Amino acid sequence: MTVHLVGAGPGDPGLITVRGLELVRTADVLVYDRLVSDELVAEARGDAILVPRDAHEQEEINALLVALARQGYEVVRLKGGDPFVFGRGGEEALALVDAGIEFEVVPGVSSLAAVPAAAGIPVTHRGVSAQVTIVSGHSADGEELDYEALARAGGTLVVFMGLRRLAAIAAGLIAHGRDAHTPVAVVAAATTPREQVVTAPLHAIAEAAAGLQSPALVVVGDVVGLRERLRRPALVA
Amino acid sequence: MTVHLVGAGPGDPGLITVRGLELVRTADVLVYDRLVSDELVAEARGDAILVPRDAHEQEEINALLVALARQGYEVVRLKGGDPFVFGRGGEEALALVDAGIEFEVVPGVSSLAAVPAAAGIPVTHRGVSAQVTIVSGHSADGEELDYEALARAGGTLVVFMGLRRLAAIAAGLIAHGRDAHTPVAVVAAATTPREQVVTAPLHAIAEAAAGLQSPALVVVGDVVGLRERLRRPALVA
Repeated sequence: MTVHLVGAGPGDPGLITVRGLELVRTADVLVYDRLVSDELVAEARGDAILVPRDAHEQEEINALLVALARQGYEVVRLKGGDPFVFGRGGEEALALVDAGIEFEVVPGVSSLAAVPAAAGIPVTHRGVSAQVTIVSGHSADGEELDYEALARAGGTLVVFMGLRRLAAIAAGLIAHGRDAHTPVAVVAAATTPREQVVTAPLHAIAEAAAGLQSPALVVVGDVVGLRERLRRPALVA
Repeated sequence: MTVHLVGAGPGDPGLITVRGLELVRTADVLVYDRLVSDELVAEARGDAILVPRDAHEQEEINALLVALARQGYEVVRLKGGDPFVFGRGGEEALALVDAGIEFEVVPGVSSLAAVPAAAGIPVTHRGVSAQVTIVSGHSADGEELDYEALARAGGTLVVFMGLRRLAAIAAGLIAHGRDAHTPVAVVAAATTPREQVVTAPLHAIAEAAAGLQSPALVVVGDVVGLRERLRRPALVA
């Protein structure tokens, strides 16, 4: 049988794709991340096997996907955002390939643009930013970020999982030449009723965002200034 | 009334969001890009007003969105990919704000990860790439790309609308120090039946991709090497 690696989108259950929802509704097995909304999990069949991913290590999940597919089950692996943007979908896909299991990737709406959008921030905008750089603040490889290159890159910087290391990230960017007054937004729980947005200049953002909780996305760059005009009051904390 | 700026996703009509499809089905007016699939346009109500965007300049579209909303119509502006990732959604949103018209952004699956995914390429992968840089090869601002910074950036480089300038882009990256043997993929018409994928080292990609047609996405980086293991034969040209 096939394992479908499906992106659930940034939080709002209406932001899964049509194809993704079809697969969730017909799956024999649904393996889902903590960040996937309860409403999407509730779309699974009443007799579907439900596996919360966070109860297991990544290696265990890889082995479980293989074992369940070999049992003849149609498996949906539902991941927050997009499976291939800091989603470790490639690792799961390789495990399936190595085991001779067919897989399909159904992309999802990544947080990288949807989360800033929810806060009234387009990551690209004519005359303001024609480039986006995406990094993870909590690298699975444990490597330090290349602040020199990031400070030099033009346009918008989006940091996934950057909340806990926000003070170090801001300091690193400023130390390597990024303007300390560059506007920054931190957006937590975007597209859900618990959404919160904090904005401040780069030098002050760590303190300003101290009260927020993960998951949160950090957006650095002049596009953040567009929020003043594009924000939707109904969505602002 | 409200103007909904909706992302249609990368091509396959099943990759629009559930919320986006609901809006397309109920809209009074559907203003759609050339890259939006016929199947999605066919989901509009039989009595909906259909406006192909490519018949109009951007300024005209902005004015049309305002005028139609003022007439009391519920307007859906359906854009390929995501409205805020090289989609000029911010410009349309500002025109609406300036006219006092309510708007909503419904994000879409951006080509930036979905198009490489269709070719078996994850833009991030543990131990291979923990960073993605996104630029447009055909900048609306007409600026030259900063090849020095791009050659220096780690991880994966994704170029939107880069096909026509591919030779110049490859030469610029190599001239500023990017390894001429870096693997590159060009993916045209991704997630549609006309999908085509060409891979070659950076120094040879322009010649190898000469026969492809827009829309195409260029992916530069070691993640391209994962395609050999992750490609799905059924999708390969």
